[in-house]
Order: sequence, then structure tokens, then C-alpha cells
Amino acid sequence: MAVDTTALVNALQTKIDRSRILTDAADCLPYSYDYSRNSHPPDAVVFATSHQEVVHCLSTCYQLNIPVVPRGEGTGIVGGSVPIHGGVVLSLERMQQILAVDVANRCMRVQPGVLNQSVQDKAAEHGFFWPPDPSSRQVCSVGGNLAHNSAGPRAVKYGTPRENTLGLQAVTADGKTLRTGVYTTKGVVGYDLTRLLIGSEGTLAVITEATLKLTPLPEAIGCLRVLYKDIHSAASAVSHIMAQPVIPYTLEFLDSACLNLIREHSSLDLPAQAQAMLLIEVDGPRVALPSAIQAIQQAASNAGLIGIDHAQTAAEKAQLWQARKTLSPTLRKIAAKKINEDVVVPVAQMAPFIQQLAEFAQTYQITIVNFGHAGNGNIHVNLLVDPNDAEQMQRSQQCLHKIFTLVIQLGGSLSGEHGVGLAKQNYIGYEIDPVTLELMQKIKQQFDPKHLLNPGKIFPKK
Amino acid sequence: MAVDTTALVNALQTKIDRSRILTDAADCLPYSYDYSRNSHPPDAVVFATSHQEVVHCLSTCYQLNIPVVPRGEGTGIVGGSVPIHGGVVLSLERMQQILAVDVANRCMRVQPGVLNQSVQDKAAEHGFFWPPDPSSRQVCSVGGNLAHNSAGPRAVKYGTPRENTLGLQAVTADGKTLRTGVYTTKGVVGYDLTRLLIGSEGTLAVITEATLKLTPLPEAIGCLRVLYKDIHSAASAVSHIMAQPVIPYTLEFLDSACLNLIREHSSLDLPAQAQAMLLIEVDGPRVALPSAIQAIQQAASNAGLIGIDHAQTAAEKAQLWQARKTLSPTLRKIAAKKINEDVVVPVAQMAPFIQQLAEFAQTYQITIVNFGHAGNGNIHVNLLVDPNDAEQMQRSQQCLHKIFTLVIQLGGSLSGEHGVGLAKQNYIGYEIDPVTLELMQKIKQQFDPKHLLNPGKIFPKK
Repeated sequence: MAVDTTALVNALQTKIDRSRILTDAADCLPYSYDYSRNSHPPDAVVFATSHQEVVHCLSTCYQLNIPVVPRGEGTGIVGGSVPIHGGVVLSLERMQQILAVDVANRCMRVQPGVLNQSVQDKAAEHGFFWPPDPSSRQVCSVGGNLAHNSAGPRAVKYGTPRENTLGLQAVTADGKTLRTGVYTTKGVVGYDLTRLLIGSEGTLAVITEATLKLTPLPEAIGCLRVLYKDIHSAASAVSHIMAQPVIPYTLEFLDSACLNLIREHSSLDLPAQAQAMLLIEVDGPRVALPSAIQAIQQAASNAGLIGIDHAQTAAEKAQLWQARKTLSPTLRKIAAKKINEDVVVPVAQMAPFIQQLAEFAQTYQITIVNFGHAGNGNIHVNLLVDPNDAEQMQRSQQCLHKIFTLVIQLGGSLSGEHGVGLAKQNYIGYEIDPVTLELMQKIKQQFDPKHLLNPGKIFPKK
Repeated sequence: MAVDTTALVNALQTKIDRSRILTDAADCLPYSYDYSRNSHPPDAVVFATSHQEVVHCLSTCYQLNIPVVPRGEGTGIVGGSVPIHGGVVLSLERMQQILAVDVANRCMRVQPGVLNQSVQDKAAEHGFFWPPDPSSRQVCSVGGNLAHNSAGPRAVKYGTPRENTLGLQAVTADGKTLRTGVYTTKGVVGYDLTRLLIGSEGTLAVITEATLKLTPLPEAIGCLRVLYKDIHSAASAVSHIMAQPVIPYTLEFLDSACLNLIREHSSLDLPAQAQAMLLIEVDGPRVALPSAIQAIQQAASNAGLIGIDHAQTAAEKAQLWQARKTLSPTLRKIAAKKINEDVVVPVAQMAPFIQQLAEFAQTYQITIVNFGHAGNGNIHVNLLVDPNDAEQMQRSQQCLHKIFTLVIQLGGSLSGEHGVGLAKQNYIGYEIDPVTLELMQKIKQQFDPKHLLNPGKIFPKK
């Protein structure tokens, strides 16, 4: 459907400064793709700076029947912010205000374009943090975190955005303002639309403000590097750690391929026989840390253990995390197009799952590299493929089908934090049954009767 | 609308044993009311014992256009399970199976009729607990807890059912089976229907199974009784406690009227000048408890403090909690019909809110007794009224209007854990704006197009 950009711009610029409306193809290009490398040009890009401008943009596009794709910083990896049907990319990146830090009530009100790191920095000034901490937190926005319910390592103990957001202000497809949730830690008046919007990937409404629940910074954090001679020992240790009372602050997992990458790309000293690593942090009152660490060490010890090192200095700890955080970009450099999955399995199923992945790698002759948030059973399964090798790409799709089928058999989920977007829309039926999926689509219909809001995402192509 | 009970029973008994279908008025009577003392007779009561029987009951009633009101143990206090339009009360009280305790994955699968206390007992055998702990936990069911998102004292640190439930199985009004959520601690595939159903008070679907997220039992719990010479000092202490890093396990608040009741009805020793009490528990590793308690004591100390006692024995602790837990039933004994509200205000607004309540009590000449979950700002505001005193009842309604208006002005919510039901349906517009309310009703329409599922609840009467 061709968009009359002249009419669009004329209508938009009655309330949005013309300088914040792009229509030139070259100007719009950076807003045609996200980290998934899917791409489609928008007809226009609009930079909103206020709730009222979001309302105006949405109601204008509703009248003109033009799709609107909300976008934060474009760090998503499932194509969630790619405007596959053209229309307007509504960029929230200039809505960067931290509206209030309310220490007494332990919450913070922010606009959606605020970077995750800015939230962390501001909260830390007052002795708090906001638990969601994607690896991309230096460059990703809170709005994007909410859209995909994106978390990170700390989710194992402190939860995802759904457990750490009290309320939202949002705008529906036809430009109406919603206020969901509460400003308090309890409230059961009406249906929970806050959590419904969180993780809805911009398909129900555009979030223009969020009230984030803050958590006190732990007094102390200890960091352990635990090496194993094989991946099964590491996976089994994860189950044991999660079955005892001390919940780690973070519990990350890296397989042998990851360790090889680290050997090549960092100065971290890793013994040759190490084939898997757990990176574990434990937090709490300083006085309680030794016994907590001891409990974790005990649970982590099994026949495959090579050794446990306690990172003694901030520099040592930073080096470990640096190695972990650069894995995704490093992998992307070496593989022309890696397929980056973020499946979840129940923690107790991690060992058999990892075992089976090795067999799939063998069967389909695909290099599979695994790391991720082991405490949640959230594994980043990376299939290293060459998009120019058609035969290999076909094998990788077969392999993916096997992986997803297995994940569901084991009681898991296809995505822990990336979402569905374009990448998994054809697989959603593996996890969600037809009755439930139909209800989700009926809910979508209520928020967005013309199907203009981030169209063509999440649900299977018809 | 008259129900043809013969046709109903004939259809139901094809799959549900006749002995579990009541139609005699006297037999049905106990299912006509809940703890709110609202009452209306149902045409029939059906005791389901399985998911399939719930499906059969709902699809039968859907075909016959008969309302269905799901019911747990009837301990709700907003009339949520009262069949005000007659029809079938679908009792889940015989679905009492704990289907699985999965220690390795820290979760438990239960049927909705399981008592909250049974969940706690079973979890404790494995070193865990389920955080939601209503005062009625000995006699209330998990299904009811989920329906109203009911929590209790521990919510201040560990959250409500929405933060402690991973997934649900449920049945829609037309008898279709939904499966929501995941079996893991992360998952972002499709919309969050789990939290949408939790707190929807049986108006969207009937929950037939829940996967509860378990939390490790704390190693140690310390208990403090803190007395103040006035209520404002106690409210102000609550703000200070919640602004420092140690989050209490529970933080309960009792005003002078409550203390007088305790003086009359228990052997607890309370100095005459004590006009308010905080009951505070602190949990954590044993070794960390002294410093945590010290931090709380420091925050609790202000000019109005009379003294802090550390409950040394289990018996002392039990006595304190016994006094707290019997407040609601004791109040009910002395007031012919108390109006029991459970409003929430931001913690920092507790002191001005309590101050204002005292002024309302004066203005409207109504005795107001306050206690509750101070750490969440969740105050049980009890208006002691005599239903035979029409003039007083009228004043109490005016007073309630003032209280609710103030709660919203302060950024609070009309209900923290009781829900809306019948009691607050005409006040819901104080908190939820028309646009958001309309969307909630449109969602309801998708789950229950014939408006047969717990009809006449939550939304304002038309």
C-alpha cells in the first residue's frame, strides 16, 4: 500500500516539528533494520519528544491507515522494530527523561528512550538498581526492554521487567491514552494490563512512560569462575546450585567453543582441559557472603570440576565479565550470519538438553556455540552458518526445528528474552496452542482494530 | 432469567456424578454468600473434581446460557463468589491435588482447591515456601488467591501471586482450554495471559491448574515488636524503614484501636501509653541477622518510639502474630457490620494518609480502625458501623467516598489484595480511566462473549 508521504507530513507537522520528521530514503535507511539484519525501508521516521507527540503521530496514522512501528535503540535481534510493511517508524530515542526518582517509594518514572545504563546509573546514586540488565545495557533503551521483557544475568534472582515494573502510560493504535498498573507494590483493581503490554513487542500500544520498581544494591557481591572438564558436568552443577537455598545474583554458562573464543580474543588465562565455565556471582550482606559462597562452591563441585577461582579484584571480575559480554559480538564477527536463539529449558533439563544439542550439531554438521543465563535455563544457542551456503542453511533450519521441538518437549520456551518478532513467528505454534493463540489475536484486535501497530509480528504469517 | 434446572442437571450428569450436583435450595444455601455477607442463591452447585469436569460444566452452561460463578473456599470479602444472577456455583474445593513438587526447578503444580496452608506445608518439606500468605491461609484456596491476587504480610519482600506464578491452565466461558505462561522463570513468547488471569476475579476464565514458583525458606527470621506513642510516629517509621536497604520479611502496622482490642482479647502485655505498633520480621542468613535487625531498629527509632522488643522465643512470636491475625474476626464480632477496606498508598504517604483518616473519623463520627501491611502501604481501613443505623450508614458512605478520593490523590490504589467484586465496582472509575476501563471490558468480551462468567462483578453496574 503506497503511503502519501506529503499528506502524512502535512498532518504530522501540525504538532511535530518538521525537523523531526524524516522522509528522505537515505535519512530513513538507519531505521530500516535492527540487530537481526532483517530490513525494510519505512516511508517516514518520526522522532517524538513527548507523550502528546506520540498521541498525535498515532492518531494521524490511524486516520490515514498508515502502519506505525515503535522503535527504541534498534538493538533487538528478532526483527521486532523492522517496518516490514513500511509506514512510519516512531522513534522514542529522544524521550530520554528520567522524570522522577522516588527513593522513599523505591521507584523511578522514566520515558521509554532512557538507556538501561542511565537507569542503573541514576538508581545507583540513591543506593538502588533496576534488575533487568541485558548485555546490551549500555546502548539499549528501557522501552525496548519492556517491549520484549528483556532481562539479563540478574534475572535469576531479581526477575525480568514483568516483576520490576509497577505501571505504564501508553498510547493505543488510535491515539488513546492508557494508564495501567499502580504506583505502589500492591494493587488489584481491574485487569493487569501492565504485564500484558510488557513483552507485547509494540503490537498493542506504544509505551510513553514507565514506573520502574527499584531494588536496594547489595552490600557485597562475590564472583566465582568455575571450570569443568566437560559441558555436562557444568550443566549438572547448575541444577545442583539451583536446588539449594542460596540464589545466585548471576549464574552464567559458557561452553567449550566460547572458551576457545575467549582464549583467542582475550588475555584471560584458561587451562587447556577446561571445556565449560560457570561465571557465578553471589550477593548479600558482607558478613553473610563467605557462607553463601561456600554453599555455592559445594553445590558446584562434582566429578568434572577442574577448579573454582574467586575473583579477588574488581579488575579480575571486570575481565571475566568482559569476556562474557563480548561473546555475542565476537561470534557475529566470525560467523557471517549466526542464528542466535535464546531458548529456555527447566534448569533440571539443562544437562540432557546440552547433550542433545551436541548430537544435533553432529547430525546436521553445524557448529553450535552455547552460552547464557544458566540459572534461568536460558541458553543462547548460536548456530554458526554461512548464508551463502544454501545447503547448510537448509540443514540449519532442520536443526532449528529439532531444537525447538526438543525445548517444548522438555517443558521449556522458545524465547527467554529476545521475543518472537519476525524470527520466531512461524514457530510460535510449537509453544502456544491454537485456542490460546486465537485469544491473544483477539486481544490484539481490541487494541489495534486496523492492524496498524507493528503489523506482521509475533503471530504466524497468514 | 429462570434456569431450567432439570435440563441443566440432565446435561451436567452425563459427565459429572449426580451426587456432586446440588439443586435443593437448602443444600445450595452455603454457596450463596462469602465473607462479605452479600448473598444470592444459586440455581445449582457443581463440585468439579477434574479439569475435564470444569470443561464440561462450562460448555454445558454456555450452551444453556446459564451464568457460572467459580468459587474456592468462599473467604473473599468483596462478594466475588456470590452468584448475584443465580446460575451455577462451580465449586473447585474438591480439586485439592498437589500434582507435583519439582524441587530442582523450584516449582509446584497444584489444582485450584488446594489450601494455601497445604501449599506452604508441602513446600516446607522441601525447604521452600510460596510467598502469598493471606491471614486466612489456613482456610483459603490457592484458586481464590490467584483470582484476587491475594497476598499477605510477606508481599513486602517476596511479592504477590503475580510475581510467584509461572503458568496456568484455565477454561474459558465456552469450555475451551487455555494454557498460559511457562514452566521456567523466563519466557516471552506471546502475550502474558498468566498475569491477566491472575486478579481477574473469575471473570475471564476458570483456573484449573497453576504452576507456582517456590522460594527457599530463609535460614533465620527475627521478630520485633515496636511501640510508638502515636500513630504518626509509627507511619513515619515505616517510611524510614522502607527507604533503607534491608527489606523486611514482614512489616505490619496496628493503630491504637487495634491495641485496645488486643488489650481486651489477649494476654499480650502492652504499656498504656502505646498508641501504635509495628510488627516487623527480618529474614536472611543467620549470620547476617544481627546487622539487619540493627539497621531496621535504627530506621524505626524516632521521637515517638516507646520501645523495641525482640521476640526471643517461638511462643512470644506466635503470641504477637496471633494478636495480629485475630484482629479482623475480632473486629467483626464487635461491629455489627464493619466496612473492611484494603486501600494502598505509597509508603511515603502513609503518615499524611493516617492523619487524614483521623480527621474523617471526627467529621463523619465513625470509628475507624486501621491495621495492615505497612511495608506495601496496604492499610486495612475498618469503618465500624451498625447497619440498622441508616443515618450512620449514609455518613459511612460519604466517608468512604472521601477516603477513596484521597487514596487516588495520593497515588494509591483502592485495593491491595481483596479485589473489586461487588464491593468496589461503583468506585472503579476513581482509579481506572474510561479508556483503560473500556479496553478491559473489551478483553472480557473476548474471553466471555455471552457474559456468563461471574457476571455483574468488577465493572460498574450499567
